[in-house]
Amino acid sequence: MELFSYWRSSAAYRVRIGLNLKQLPYRITPVHLLRDGGQQHSEGYAALNPQELVPTLRHDGQVLHQSMAILDYLDEVFPLPALLPDDAAGRARVRALAQLLACDIHPLNNLRVMQFFSDTWSVPQPERDDWTRHWMQVGFEAMERMLVESVDTGRFCHGDSPGLADCCLVPQLYNARRFNVDMGPYPTLARIDAACLALPAFDAARPEHQPDAA
Amino acid sequence: MELFSYWRSSAAYRVRIGLNLKQLPYRITPVHLLRDGGQQHSEGYAALNPQELVPTLRHDGQVLHQSMAILDYLDEVFPLPALLPDDAAGRARVRALAQLLACDIHPLNNLRVMQFFSDTWSVPQPERDDWTRHWMQVGFEAMERMLVESVDTGRFCHGDSPGLADCCLVPQLYNARRFNVDMGPYPTLARIDAACLALPAFDAARPEHQPDAA
Repeated sequence: MELFSYWRSSAAYRVRIGLNLKQLPYRITPVHLLRDGGQQHSEGYAALNPQELVPTLRHDGQVLHQSMAILDYLDEVFPLPALLPDDAAGRARVRALAQLLACDIHPLNNLRVMQFFSDTWSVPQPERDDWTRHWMQVGFEAMERMLVESVDTGRFCHGDSPGLADCCLVPQLYNARRFNVDMGPYPTLARIDAACLALPAFDAARPEHQPDAA
Repeated sequence: MELFSYWRSSAAYRVRIGLNLKQLPYRITPVHLLRDGGQQHSEGYAALNPQELVPTLRHDGQVLHQSMAILDYLDEVFPLPALLPDDAAGRARVRALAQLLACDIHPLNNLRVMQFFSDTWSVPQPERDDWTRHWMQVGFEAMERMLVESVDTGRFCHGDSPGLADCCLVPQLYNARRFNVDMGPYPTLARIDAACLALPAFDAARPEHQPDAA
């Protein structure tokens, strides 16, 4: 397997965690999102991924896009350890938590959005950072409440094994630290993040442990 | 089943299509996103959905959040007709197309983002509309290419039966029309949208056919 990845991309980070949890061997091909005007926009990469976003996973002749679709694919093709629970209600809960992060926070704070703000609207850095923190705080507040109110929350987002929601949470909390978001109001998120990062699968996926880390 | 819906919400529209395709009976409880300061922020609704977003689906004692998680749940609990193909590669393709729309276009153009721009940044309406069109055009361009380049594209996004990607495409093209996006460069998206809207399941889910339509 070949993962087209950028060390700081949250979406690539999610897939690295999933691959590591399943102990699947993979090779990283770095795509530098800031170098050469953005290597994701190169002709070669755009032919592989028309959205010109990371990650892309090559496996068994398939070219796979979108981190969440890739994680579902991995869970179907390599079922153990499972990233989703067995029951439909549990699966729906884990997916909703994951999508709160992957649909309602991350796309708003992505590099291309920041580039639009600076290049097209000339939004100053402090206001761009306020925007970034705002969507994290709105999302974290809801997620903290959803975790606290559910008996299904365990050592991890769902029970005592790491899964899909944890694959999304840890990269998002890495971003939260970069932007100095006060995690005080979200003790459950912080606790689960710490439990995840203590595991080798999560540790090896950290941005700073990537071959292309600055 | 009870669907908390708003007639113009893309995310609720996706779930209405999914429910209709599976011919599942459901009752709509309207949540007016603009009335009373946004009924999604009411205490009662926030208790049901801490993200204060639509849709929410109540089924069999479960309270389900996030449109994409709900569609996966429906496909697991009511397998026929299937919203996803049988093979892992096909499922990954359909999910990636769906997520291109549901993660990389829609969250950027959502009501709460527009409210942030107007209330916090005082961005004038024409620039907000440019932003909205920009992310649609970026996404549509990639999706058109992905559809044209794949032999799996049929009458619908994947083969000749409507599925998950079509559930996401039709609401997004409804938005494109509202914002006068020229669909000329995306003939495949327009063709599939038309094929979908000719089916009763999609027609009944249209915003203008909802009980809470203005």
